[in-house]
Amino acid sequence: MKDTIDMTEMTKEDVTAMILSAKKQAGLTWEEIAEKIDMSPIWTHSAVMGMNAFPPEKAELMVTTMGLPQEAASVLAESPTKIWEQAVPTDPCIYRFYEIVGVYGPTLKAIIQEKFGDGIMSAIDFDMSVTRVEHPKGDRVKVEMSGKFLGYNSW
Amino acid sequence: MKDTIDMTEMTKEDVTAMILSAKKQAGLTWEEIAEKIDMSPIWTHSAVMGMNAFPPEKAELMVTTMGLPQEAASVLAESPTKIWEQAVPTDPCIYRFYEIVGVYGPTLKAIIQEKFGDGIMSAIDFDMSVTRVEHPKGDRVKVEMSGKFLGYNSW
Amino acid sequence: MKDTIDMTEMTKEDVTAMILSAKKQAGLTWEEIAEKIDMSPIWTHSAVMGMNAFPPEKAELMVTTMGLPQEAASVLAESPTKIWEQAVPTDPCIYRFYEIVGVYGPTLKAIIQEKFGDGIMSAIDFDMSVTRVEHPKGDRVKVEMSGKFLGYNSW
Amino acid sequence: MKDTIDMTEMTKEDVTAMILSAKKQAGLTWEEIAEKIDMSPIWTHSAVMGMNAFPPEKAELMVTTMGLPQEAASVLAESPTKIWEQAVPTDPCIYRFYEIVGVYGPTLKAIIQEKFGDGIMSAIDFDMSVTRVEHPKGDRVKVEMSGKFLGYNSW
Amino acid sequence: MKDTIDMTEMTKEDVTAMILSAKKQAGLTWEEIAEKIDMSPIWTHSAVMGMNAFPPEKAELMVTTMGLPQEAASVLAESPTKIWEQAVPTDPCIYRFYEIVGVYGPTLKAIIQEKFGDGIMSAIDFDMSVTRVEHPKGDRVKVEMSGKFLGYNSW
Amino acid sequence: MKDTIDMTEMTKEDVTAMILSAKKQAGLTWEEIAEKIDMSPIWTHSAVMGMNAFPPEKAELMVTTMGLPQEAASVLAESPTKIWEQAVPTDPCIYRFYEIVGVYGPTLKAIIQEKFGDGIMSAIDFDMSVTRVEHPKGDRVKVEMSGKFLGYNSW
Amino acid sequence: MKDTIDMTEMTKEDVTAMILSAKKQAGLTWEEIAEKIDMSPIWTHSAVMGMNAFPPEKAELMVTTMGLPQEAASVLAESPTKIWEQAVPTDPCIYRFYEIVGVYGPTLKAIIQEKFGDGIMSAIDFDMSVTRVEHPKGDRVKVEMSGKFLGYNSW
Amino acid sequence: MKDTIDMTEMTKEDVTAMILSAKKQAGLTWEEIAEKIDMSPIWTHSAVMGMNAFPPEKAELMVTTMGLPQEAASVLAESPTKIWEQAVPTDPCIYRFYEIVGVYGPTLKAIIQEKFGDGIMSAIDFDMSVTRVEHPKGDRVKVEMSGKFLGYNSW
Amino acid sequence: MKDTIDMTEMTKEDVTAMILSAKKQAGLTWEEIAEKIDMSPIWTHSAVMGMNAFPPEKAELMVTTMGLPQEAASVLAESPTKIWEQAVPTDPCIYRFYEIVGVYGPTLKAIIQEKFGDGIMSAIDFDMSVTRVEHPKGDRVKVEMSGKFLGYNSW
Amino acid sequence: MKDTIDMTEMTKEDVTAMILSAKKQAGLTWEEIAEKIDMSPIWTHSAVMGMNAFPPEKAELMVTTMGLPQEAASVLAESPTKIWEQAVPTDPCIYRFYEIVGVYGPTLKAIIQEKFGDGIMSAIDFDMSVTRVEHPKGDRVKVEMSGKFLGYNSW
Repeated sequence: MKDTIDMTEMTKEDVTAMILSAKKQAGLTWEEIAEKIDMSPIWTHSAVMGMNAFPPEKAELMVTTMGLPQEAASVLAESPTKIWEQAVPTDPCIYRFYEIVGVYGPTLKAIIQEKFGDGIMSAIDFDMSVTRVEHPKGDRVKVEMSGKFLGYNSW
Repeated sequence: MKDTIDMTEMTKEDVTAMILSAKKQAGLTWEEIAEKIDMSPIWTHSAVMGMNAFPPEKAELMVTTMGLPQEAASVLAESPTKIWEQAVPTDPCIYRFYEIVGVYGPTLKAIIQEKFGDGIMSAIDFDMSVTRVEHPKGDRVKVEMSGKFLGYNSW
Repeated sequence: MKDTIDMTEMTKEDVTAMILSAKKQAGLTWEEIAEKIDMSPIWTHSAVMGMNAFPPEKAELMVTTMGLPQEAASVLAESPTKIWEQAVPTDPCIYRFYEIVGVYGPTLKAIIQEKFGDGIMSAIDFDMSVTRVEHPKGDRVKVEMSGKFLGYNSW
Repeated sequence: MKDTIDMTEMTKEDVTAMILSAKKQAGLTWEEIAEKIDMSPIWTHSAVMGMNAFPPEKAELMVTTMGLPQEAASVLAESPTKIWEQAVPTDPCIYRFYEIVGVYGPTLKAIIQEKFGDGIMSAIDFDMSVTRVEHPKGDRVKVEMSGKFLGYNSW
Repeated sequence: MKDTIDMTEMTKEDVTAMILSAKKQAGLTWEEIAEKIDMSPIWTHSAVMGMNAFPPEKAELMVTTMGLPQEAASVLAESPTKIWEQAVPTDPCIYRFYEIVGVYGPTLKAIIQEKFGDGIMSAIDFDMSVTRVEHPKGDRVKVEMSGKFLGYNSW
Repeated sequence: MKDTIDMTEMTKEDVTAMILSAKKQAGLTWEEIAEKIDMSPIWTHSAVMGMNAFPPEKAELMVTTMGLPQEAASVLAESPTKIWEQAVPTDPCIYRFYEIVGVYGPTLKAIIQEKFGDGIMSAIDFDMSVTRVEHPKGDRVKVEMSGKFLGYNSW
Repeated sequence: MKDTIDMTEMTKEDVTAMILSAKKQAGLTWEEIAEKIDMSPIWTHSAVMGMNAFPPEKAELMVTTMGLPQEAASVLAESPTKIWEQAVPTDPCIYRFYEIVGVYGPTLKAIIQEKFGDGIMSAIDFDMSVTRVEHPKGDRVKVEMSGKFLGYNSW
Repeated sequence: MKDTIDMTEMTKEDVTAMILSAKKQAGLTWEEIAEKIDMSPIWTHSAVMGMNAFPPEKAELMVTTMGLPQEAASVLAESPTKIWEQAVPTDPCIYRFYEIVGVYGPTLKAIIQEKFGDGIMSAIDFDMSVTRVEHPKGDRVKVEMSGKFLGYNSW
Repeated sequence: MKDTIDMTEMTKEDVTAMILSAKKQAGLTWEEIAEKIDMSPIWTHSAVMGMNAFPPEKAELMVTTMGLPQEAASVLAESPTKIWEQAVPTDPCIYRFYEIVGVYGPTLKAIIQEKFGDGIMSAIDFDMSVTRVEHPKGDRVKVEMSGKFLGYNSW
Repeated sequence: MKDTIDMTEMTKEDVTAMILSAKKQAGLTWEEIAEKIDMSPIWTHSAVMGMNAFPPEKAELMVTTMGLPQEAASVLAESPTKIWEQAVPTDPCIYRFYEIVGVYGPTLKAIIQEKFGDGIMSAIDFDMSVTRVEHPKGDRVKVEMSGKFLGYNSW
């Protein structure tokens, strides 16, 4: 819990902390913040967490929306280095997605290749959404991913 | 490449091999096989790979459809033990999904909890599909997952 | 050992430390604290440790009971991220449970599936208790777990 | 899938395979086998899997019950070496128990020590059961463990 | 060293072995084989090793060129699953490339992002060559890689 | 974020931070900095990151160019200890290079040995460049590496 | 090196540091400290290191003997959490014991089971000593361990 | 389970299997075998397991005693390569010794250094025994180790 | 233990086995074999183990000397892939060298850089010997390594 | 970068930092420091790094030579705990030695055992030197190690 933040040396972690604090004080949800900058909630959260870079105009909008110091805009626009420390995540909510990749990974590969030929789904030219679907036996989480198909080169 | 299979000791691996061989000879796709047993291609492939158990009537249908020995039906219906040996998968097509969990895992958790409260998306009461979406800049892979939301208990 | 805690940036770790300190000064056991908030000792301890979220009214009760600053209530009610750093725990008391999973894991799976069909015991819709059972050759620890059975989907 | 088993060099794996085959042909459940030798299903399954040693008279009973060759009795009675190869189990049914140890391990330790003093629950002088409990919102798996408390020595 | 290969169940490993054997008997280099099928030596070797799929017409050409059984063509054209078992390679020749990624990885990232913006070099839409460059103090290995730049999406 | 830096105990990390800060304030790119000291951008960045040692005269030039305290020159000239903590890098931009080593490592080895005999490409007597190549279907990243061939000794 | 220790939040690490400092100033050996509290040197050292809990009266004695603040007594009496971070220890003196377990582990198991039946030596109801034995070719370290035999349960 | 053993290519594993089989048929304990060759049971078992080399005359004695083919003597006398595959052993009987090294390792080091100065207990010039000690509350396993002290060199 | 070796598909493992067998039958030491081919014992052993490639004329000499089939010569001359599976070796004799690298690695680096500037000792342009040095307190193993110094490039 | 060092709680890390700072200010090499205390450069550097203990009189000499506070002498003389955190070192200069152990480990073992019988080279009763050897094709690093041979005990 750093006392004061030196504006000229602000890091992505500093800006993440400022936004989380501003979000709490304003009582905003991620959905509301996303709407204010006209982006999706998934992308907005991941960019705030330092896992994506804000396009400059979205960074400016974020600074205005959340009342951040002006210096934060360039920090939000920097390309992040994406580090995760748990090769196997322990949090149950995240682990379940890891388990899906373990159980269904070879199946995803087989069906993608049946439909497209040899290649992959890009995780870079990629987007994702989460929605709540009502269901009589208990509501369901719906996750939709979309990534560009990239075929292997032969040369 | 086992020479002959002792019918009374057939394993899931044996039946997987028989189906892959029959599929190749018949020139069928996973989509076509799935249609014949009236299940989805994703589930069908994962069950053939030994990552899910066939309901008895689907096992019978599979035996008829693919021309398997009768003993295969009970093997297809057994509960599998789900083992994957690479904690971090190396195949690029599967790795990209692992990367998505690493990059977006905390975001999936945050948005699920914003929409539902504290809990997880089940990976058991779960289904998934893969579709090809045409796109002028290159077609896209669309993956849709749906799992029941399970809220944490407090007691 | 942080000197002073900035109330507006209180973390789960801060609140855990406050409760442990208040517990020590008041000379309370976990059983007594649990009773005061009308929850079980196992759940209460795990939620104080930051492994479960307090329902809002229980969070309020906890704040009153333990004399915490008002701001602690919303922190106790936040969804935690569950991290454990030792894939194989070293503490002998915790290791023994890990060993039980290693030795009896395939057995638990076989018996659950014999009784319920293909599926799992939920660790989310789940509760647990520990009791002391007197025994002439040395008292015994009794651990009871109960989790909802979730059957695998086929689609 | 070994063709023939040399009776004088039978291993625990050989006997496990014989019992699984006999069980399938006879259409018996673990519960029924356990009843025939008057032991619990959990212990019976784990001993058949080679994770526990049969007392000599139970080994004899098992040989008669399942129609095994006489040489199997001494194999069943040998002390096993308990090996598990996945430090973090991947099968979802077994992983959930690993997750419980990760999430609740420090809590189990705290409550055991509150009730007994410094020490552990033995995983050797230990027994366990699994039962199905009916519940209107979906039946529940109940796991009960009981182990002797062992207090730390000081000398 | 399998005795005979069942043509109807030929695997990628079988075909790799056939090609290595034919290459040895014919006394060909990778460069010569690559020339015969009009592809690069790097791609040809990696596809023979089972790390890339042959386009159907190149597979046919390979079968003719190397005198393989006709069934090998469809195996060469199958999408491979790319597995490597040593997360840190031990062979010194391969390790040096791993070391380059360790030492220069953050630099590659910084310069790519300076030149292109936030994104990556594709390892799928990718090609590579190795050439020998004469040098008075000792000849040098020149490795050239070229991959499509993929910019991160924001949505 | 250290407040003040004791000049007599400056570390490589301190100097890296000073240069990053000066670069940001001056609005320079790595390419421009490299040009000012007449070295390549790749080498310059890696040496600033503490992965290479500056020759003394380049260290002096760097100090002048970036307006660093004089003491920084000897620090820049020290031999670094090269540590990377992620055996498998997670950042997607760096991971792709790791993947290339996994997929093409045995191929690089085979082709190098075909062209040079038994040996390796040095990662010490080594240089590298990154350039942007325009391409109608999307610009490409070109990476060129050159390292001295070292043949194995026999004695 | 914490400046001052807040008595109300003293940790086991704080007390360990106090004892090591007092030991150094008083010029005492572990043997002499152990004698003053009438315990063995092995147990005394391990409890000071935070790997065992002091019985309350020994904790009081320790406080008096070493001139610790009164608050230290309850800290010494708390049940510790036993963490070691190196799964394979690197210090040569400790590694040699790890090596002994690797080389002789299966032998210890075989001989214990030959003498006692199926079971283990407890590491909880356990004590150990180290003595110096004079020997003409160089003195020897003698380590004696004694642990209660625990036989496996069958139920 | 190899059918027949080619005498000219006998391995340590082959001889271990022969001795285990002969031991079973003769109904001998390790203690009795050790006595016949006038060595300790611990050493005898570890050498039979391939973790120590038999001195030539003991190898001859072993061959005579157990009725092995003459060729086994030179195999028993070969220097073994000591491999263990589980860095953290899972068998509970062996794990408890690993746990002792984890918990008491720093203590063993401190006491050895207090008694001898800086150095280690050799695991090479080393011997060990296991005995059963009767005790009213349950018999105890006594393990005694003795290794030469080796002081660190300074030069 | 393969029965017969197909000469046209001989592997390095096959040739290693042939040489070990011929060495045993001829009663030769590594020193004697090395002398016959006029190379050092260290290099000879490592090349026989498949960790170095024989120059063609030495391969021919080896074939004659050890009475190998003619086909073995080209196998001995192939470039090996150097794999070791234990990142931390367990055999005590090999582990001690690993320990030396752990303890003295930073020192070797510091002294090499003091004497040569920034760079490394090559492990490729490298040779090594082991000799026995008599010593009144016990003979000593002398290991001498010599590798070309390679200075880091800056470009 | 600690501000001030409390003399009564000086650690090995503190003294290492003092010596590195004094060395830099005095412009001394390790060779010169070693000469002043009449020890070898290798041993001196490793002991300064905290990987060996100074004999008391050498510790005193070091204090005088480098102008350290008197309290440093007893710290230098303490037995260190030898920790290294990278099981596989990443720094290229240190990695090359690790690679040598991987490639030549089994050879070192075979030749030591051929010359001495079953046993190891001690890494405790051990010394080492590094020298620069001029060579027309580039100077070479010569590393000489000498360790006492320890033969395995049989008992």
